[in-house]
Amino acid sequence: MKATIVTIGDEILIGQIVDTNSGFIAKSLDKIGVEINEMISISDDKKHIFDTFTALQNKVDLVIITGGLGPTKDDITKKTFCDYFEDELVVDQKVLAHVTQLIEGFYKRTITQINKDQALVPSKCTVLHNQVGTAPGMWMKKENTVFISLPGVPYEMKYLMEHEIIPKVVREYERPYIIHKTILTYGQGESLVAERIEDWENNLPVFIKLAYLPAPGRVRLRLSARGTDKNKLETALLENVNLLDAIIHDIIVGYDEDETIEVAVGKLLTQQNKTIATAESCTGGKIATLLSAVAGASNYFAGSVVSYSTQAKIDVLGIPESLIKEYSAVSKEVASAMALSIKKRMNTDYAIATTGNAGPTKGDSDAEIGTVFIAIATPKEVIVEEFNFGQPREKVIDRAVIKSLELVQKEILKNVQ
Amino acid sequence: MKATIVTIGDEILIGQIVDTNSGFIAKSLDKIGVEINEMISISDDKKHIFDTFTALQNKVDLVIITGGLGPTKDDITKKTFCDYFEDELVVDQKVLAHVTQLIEGFYKRTITQINKDQALVPSKCTVLHNQVGTAPGMWMKKENTVFISLPGVPYEMKYLMEHEIIPKVVREYERPYIIHKTILTYGQGESLVAERIEDWENNLPVFIKLAYLPAPGRVRLRLSARGTDKNKLETALLENVNLLDAIIHDIIVGYDEDETIEVAVGKLLTQQNKTIATAESCTGGKIATLLSAVAGASNYFAGSVVSYSTQAKIDVLGIPESLIKEYSAVSKEVASAMALSIKKRMNTDYAIATTGNAGPTKGDSDAEIGTVFIAIATPKEVIVEEFNFGQPREKVIDRAVIKSLELVQKEILKNVQ
Repeated sequence: MKATIVTIGDEILIGQIVDTNSGFIAKSLDKIGVEINEMISISDDKKHIFDTFTALQNKVDLVIITGGLGPTKDDITKKTFCDYFEDELVVDQKVLAHVTQLIEGFYKRTITQINKDQALVPSKCTVLHNQVGTAPGMWMKKENTVFISLPGVPYEMKYLMEHEIIPKVVREYERPYIIHKTILTYGQGESLVAERIEDWENNLPVFIKLAYLPAPGRVRLRLSARGTDKNKLETALLENVNLLDAIIHDIIVGYDEDETIEVAVGKLLTQQNKTIATAESCTGGKIATLLSAVAGASNYFAGSVVSYSTQAKIDVLGIPESLIKEYSAVSKEVASAMALSIKKRMNTDYAIATTGNAGPTKGDSDAEIGTVFIAIATPKEVIVEEFNFGQPREKVIDRAVIKSLELVQKEILKNVQ
Repeated sequence: MKATIVTIGDEILIGQIVDTNSGFIAKSLDKIGVEINEMISISDDKKHIFDTFTALQNKVDLVIITGGLGPTKDDITKKTFCDYFEDELVVDQKVLAHVTQLIEGFYKRTITQINKDQALVPSKCTVLHNQVGTAPGMWMKKENTVFISLPGVPYEMKYLMEHEIIPKVVREYERPYIIHKTILTYGQGESLVAERIEDWENNLPVFIKLAYLPAPGRVRLRLSARGTDKNKLETALLENVNLLDAIIHDIIVGYDEDETIEVAVGKLLTQQNKTIATAESCTGGKIATLLSAVAGASNYFAGSVVSYSTQAKIDVLGIPESLIKEYSAVSKEVASAMALSIKKRMNTDYAIATTGNAGPTKGDSDAEIGTVFIAIATPKEVIVEEFNFGQPREKVIDRAVIKSLELVQKEILKNVQ
């Protein structure tokens, strides 16, 4: 079963917003064995939309369209969608009741004609109920292809994927199995890893595909197995992962089914019944943001001090001014003191501290641009490492954040009973 | 001049990573008057890549390809790119010298054959020098279409766009003018705004296009003018913006050429020579992260306390336990005390505080899921507002972050001399 994801909207084509919807839809479909053939972003233009639908007709089984379902004039998706099926728009009473309830009941506003028009749908379509917004999803089949149109607002699209589309596809279509296994390595570059595992790679069975996903400081290896016999796929994956582990055991730090590092750290802390806090300078609160974005974070994440200015390090974290004068704000000693201070102040088991110079200018420290010290305080000790993450600013911040979470993960794993 | 952006990589099609490269490329090209026709993401498959190139041949002027230029086996882009032009790969001595210098000089590793192979390029291509990485960019023309292949690592792609491609396109091609003007409104929904400006919209000249960009709590109106006479476009845009301002003056909060709210707040603080700090509960440090991601933030951003747990509010921010007991952690009173406390501790002119319940469960507060109190401390006073941002968790956090920055922007504007 093959699908193409189509995103409609000039705001994407001029780079005003980044399309995150397609990634979410792809991941949801991939999990149930639907292969994504292409993702396409096109303009809010009737002919362009129509031509795209025509080109995909009978080429894929499923076309999922997002965007262009809002109430205003520039949204021509619904009209074009309806024309493509040579259908006419009619009022869906259930949608109208829901829109009225949302506008008058929840938002306490008088309903307008534009609001009411959101209840117009092609007469032959299957309406997908959008509990969290006013624009319904629409499911329509023409010959061998199902076209599904969804609103572009991310949480409305997500609601419809989770509650309507995935269950309906699972119920109505047979799909093969697609199983991914991702191996996390770190410390060696993509080319070095590739040379070490070349023989192993050449011996992989044809139904297993390998991809390298390099990121600053680490490489993820993704194995994808596809076929109809689930047991065979799982056995082959396991065998090959074991073979791989024997070759590069020294650099494998984990296996990841779809799990971000902050989720992995959160799970570890929950299992161990431990808590964490952060003291952040150059990372500006981004480690805290990631940790707290996970549902249930309040069970292990106490909080953070973002001591961006030197004065904040002194006043809020209580780092002695003399220490900063002697070693500078960007130093092993200050990083270590920050980690110990926040651990004590937040009364946690673990703490992360970062201090560095992300650039573009040197600021009030003498450290080279890209220099970052990361300190991890554990129940037993405090460790500090120095890095140079190069340039530009965004890369330095992102690498420091990921490296911090990886280091704390390593320390927690060491202390697991 | 029309362009299509092609992203190659299975990791995008299975939703493992979100493609942010296309948005950056689109924005860069749009600024110099190149129209983006489509964005396409395809798999690491030779036939798929070849077919896509063939379909775009002579249909657009420019095809920009990212991804699949790394050193490892799964990267077949370069080979396919070369085959498409019926060319052969040859070693580029300048690239080889650069790769050798990076690996041996900067990373202090022995160069491997895989590294050396990065210097292989099609013999007829124009090499685009990648100062910040090992994979060069490649520019090749076939009939009426230029194909440009770039590495997928975002900062390498950005370097090549900024230093090589944009200057070359500007030098070698004539382009029309595309001017955008975005009007920020807030407080009214998309449909209400649409009804108020319907007559104005119907009278827009044909070369000006209007788009609605709704986001939680606000609507941006984007006007795009396209043509060869720059003066005419600018005059018409100005006239129509003035007409619009007369109709919806009450909800217009700013004009934005591409500026995010954190950049706008940063500029205001810099102009006014004022400083800011944040005390964050439910937003988990995300306001601090946004503020500190802007280059030069150290001039006005002092830092933050992320008091995620109630104990942290007491211990680190010094909120009286009695106040929390009396009003609960999620209350007007606690938000206000947090803002005043962080302003004093960080010794700043302004402060933002957030406390709320982002869900999915109620946690240790009685507040409804979605409830957020935002307090803004100014040099003169402290104001607090209560919001309900609904569900799910990510929406609550994002809306609270944006609303906080909007509120502080409003307060700073009030105090401008």
